[in-house]
Amino acid sequence: MDGEISFVTSGTVTTPKGFLAGATYAGLKKKAGGVLDLAILSAKVPCAGAALFTTNRIKAAPVVLSRQRLQSGKVSAIVVNSGYANACVGEVGLGDAAEMANLAARNLGVSPEAVLVASTGVIGKRLPMGLIKTGIKRIKVSRGGGHKLARAIMTTDTIPKEAAVAVSANGGEFVIGGTVKGSGMLHPNLATFLCFLTTDAAAGPDFLKHALRRAADVSFNMVSIDGDTSTNDMALIMADGMADGERTISPGSRQAEAFQAALNQLCIHLAKSIARDGEGASRLIEVNVSGASSFADAGLVARTIAGSPLVKTAVHGNDPNWGRIIAAAGRSGVEVMESRIDLSIGGICLVKAGCPVSFDEADVVRALGGSEVAINLELNLGTAKATAWGCDLSGEYVAINSEYTT
Amino acid sequence: MDGEISFVTSGTVTTPKGFLAGATYAGLKKKAGGVLDLAILSAKVPCAGAALFTTNRIKAAPVVLSRQRLQSGKVSAIVVNSGYANACVGEVGLGDAAEMANLAARNLGVSPEAVLVASTGVIGKRLPMGLIKTGIKRIKVSRGGGHKLARAIMTTDTIPKEAAVAVSANGGEFVIGGTVKGSGMLHPNLATFLCFLTTDAAAGPDFLKHALRRAADVSFNMVSIDGDTSTNDMALIMADGMADGERTISPGSRQAEAFQAALNQLCIHLAKSIARDGEGASRLIEVNVSGASSFADAGLVARTIAGSPLVKTAVHGNDPNWGRIIAAAGRSGVEVMESRIDLSIGGICLVKAGCPVSFDEADVVRALGGSEVAINLELNLGTAKATAWGCDLSGEYVAINSEYTT
Repeated sequence: MDGEISFVTSGTVTTPKGFLAGATYAGLKKKAGGVLDLAILSAKVPCAGAALFTTNRIKAAPVVLSRQRLQSGKVSAIVVNSGYANACVGEVGLGDAAEMANLAARNLGVSPEAVLVASTGVIGKRLPMGLIKTGIKRIKVSRGGGHKLARAIMTTDTIPKEAAVAVSANGGEFVIGGTVKGSGMLHPNLATFLCFLTTDAAAGPDFLKHALRRAADVSFNMVSIDGDTSTNDMALIMADGMADGERTISPGSRQAEAFQAALNQLCIHLAKSIARDGEGASRLIEVNVSGASSFADAGLVARTIAGSPLVKTAVHGNDPNWGRIIAAAGRSGVEVMESRIDLSIGGICLVKAGCPVSFDEADVVRALGGSEVAINLELNLGTAKATAWGCDLSGEYVAINSEYTT
Repeated sequence: MDGEISFVTSGTVTTPKGFLAGATYAGLKKKAGGVLDLAILSAKVPCAGAALFTTNRIKAAPVVLSRQRLQSGKVSAIVVNSGYANACVGEVGLGDAAEMANLAARNLGVSPEAVLVASTGVIGKRLPMGLIKTGIKRIKVSRGGGHKLARAIMTTDTIPKEAAVAVSANGGEFVIGGTVKGSGMLHPNLATFLCFLTTDAAAGPDFLKHALRRAADVSFNMVSIDGDTSTNDMALIMADGMADGERTISPGSRQAEAFQAALNQLCIHLAKSIARDGEGASRLIEVNVSGASSFADAGLVARTIAGSPLVKTAVHGNDPNWGRIIAAAGRSGVEVMESRIDLSIGGICLVKAGCPVSFDEADVVRALGGSEVAINLELNLGTAKATAWGCDLSGEYVAINSEYTT
């Protein structure tokens, strides 16, 4: 049936037709032994491309370079390293990023102008260009290389994050694949949020940009709390149009709707995998806010709750201290009415019309102890709703971030 | 000399003439043995009063009641408890708060309308009014009772926080005393920020409100990060005019300037004591931002840095990962220019005009290991400056907040 969406088994960023990837250990990360730290994602044919970049005023050199090159709406490949952010190193950073793109272009035999760059790692240290140069020469891209790329972009992530969805369309199907990294979940932070999406659907850069923004609003932006936005954040989507019988997607069409639905589903899946792998996290927290006056209101309340250190520590300790959830809603900046609020955790109602109801504390403790904790808040002010994801805050998070460079 | 400010040895909220306090253990907090949890602060004569209240949309009953009563600008006393927030308990909360005020008024022999109420503790549980009633009856206020009040309002605070400053004026002197609680430093949080200030200077409620707001802007608001604003936050100032030879302070006068300077100094002292006693904290972080285009810009950058979990964990681990500081400045929302930024930690220059400079890592590690860590950021865009205070983020913070109610 047209528009049917299914996850592809072991799907990666190279599952869509025409995409290739490869990676190597260049010596940028401290740990060796099976570790990868430099990768290339490329397409057999020039792609339409669109991206979202960090809103941080301080932008890493790869972000500056990639944003400039993407103005053409065309892209053939991206080269990415972990270990060094190539941020805050002065003017040399831009030259180093351009040189990375040149080296990758030579490896692939494409125009340097069609190659983007992404970096993640420590800020303020210059890229070791000697290692980058020999590393890029060594990379061989292949159809099966997607999983290697997913591993090469990891920093404090404990598992690679990747998936692909297939969508039936016009009697055939198109596929969207993607991989993300980012496990500083308190905020997709200096560990950086990177996202690479590919599709063999045919679409123009403007459509892709619009679709990517809409998908990010219900996925990555609902994990990214008010925290440490990295200098290097980037989400890129590339479309090569190589699916059988593909016509270029026209905005507003049924095919466009199917594409958006699939992209949303894939991005939500990847966003949840980020929250679940949050630094030091043991639990995924899902906050569903309903009955808001607008989607913006619902989203703000949901994100504020999911990002509250007090809520996160309470979940970590299986502590049914629900007042912290209500208080977070109250300070979100959204007009809420205490006397209308209903709250439940793991399906157990704790507050009805703003008043505490009696509940079995042991049941709530058990709900908080599961691997996924659902917090449902009904504002009873309107019909808009939104979902945000977070994770618990543990002593382990502190340990990880106290010992990052040293 | 007129306007000279000095800290009074062992100064408390009852150091200014005419103020009395007393406290008891009513059984509201779990721990017994030397613990106090219910207190009254009163004045021998009716006072002018002004207060700042939480900006949380969900307001605890004592906040609603006190805000309403203070519209008269007159106040004789405040009764305060710890252990229960009297928030999110439905309509009964307001009745209970009013009853607390009535009981305290009866104890003191003053009008109930002139008595305010404050509470701090767990949200969503009704005040045990039986304990409150017998407790209030037991309280005896005295000139030496200030220190008891400072102890009675503590929750996760590890030390009472109080001070008083004397200001020479018109050949005599007036005194301002104060006490605060709040050690959820990541944010003055559900542990609640409470502040009670007293002065024997003579001043009207409008002047006091204005002065309190100005003082809070350079003190408490520079500790309160973007975090978990409590439903119960309150800062109250009472002026009884009992200092010798006091004339009512007129706005814009030299005396008004002296009062403001003294109030700022006292509030900054108390704000720093909150940051230093932050939950699980081992270090006070002072962030000085200079060269900003406006005070608002300087303050926003300073607060963003002081509140960044990544900066706080880096300080905790003595990690000279200065990129996190620059990145926090970049995401603050303020227009900064990377190429103009100078950064030093503990007086050691790390970044000049946006470029890393070589430094001895061991020196910076040593500076980060001190009990006070100074981070100086020069933006080179203007002349405005601001200072914010924070503390490091430790595993201990997580432990404290994981086990609050259970």
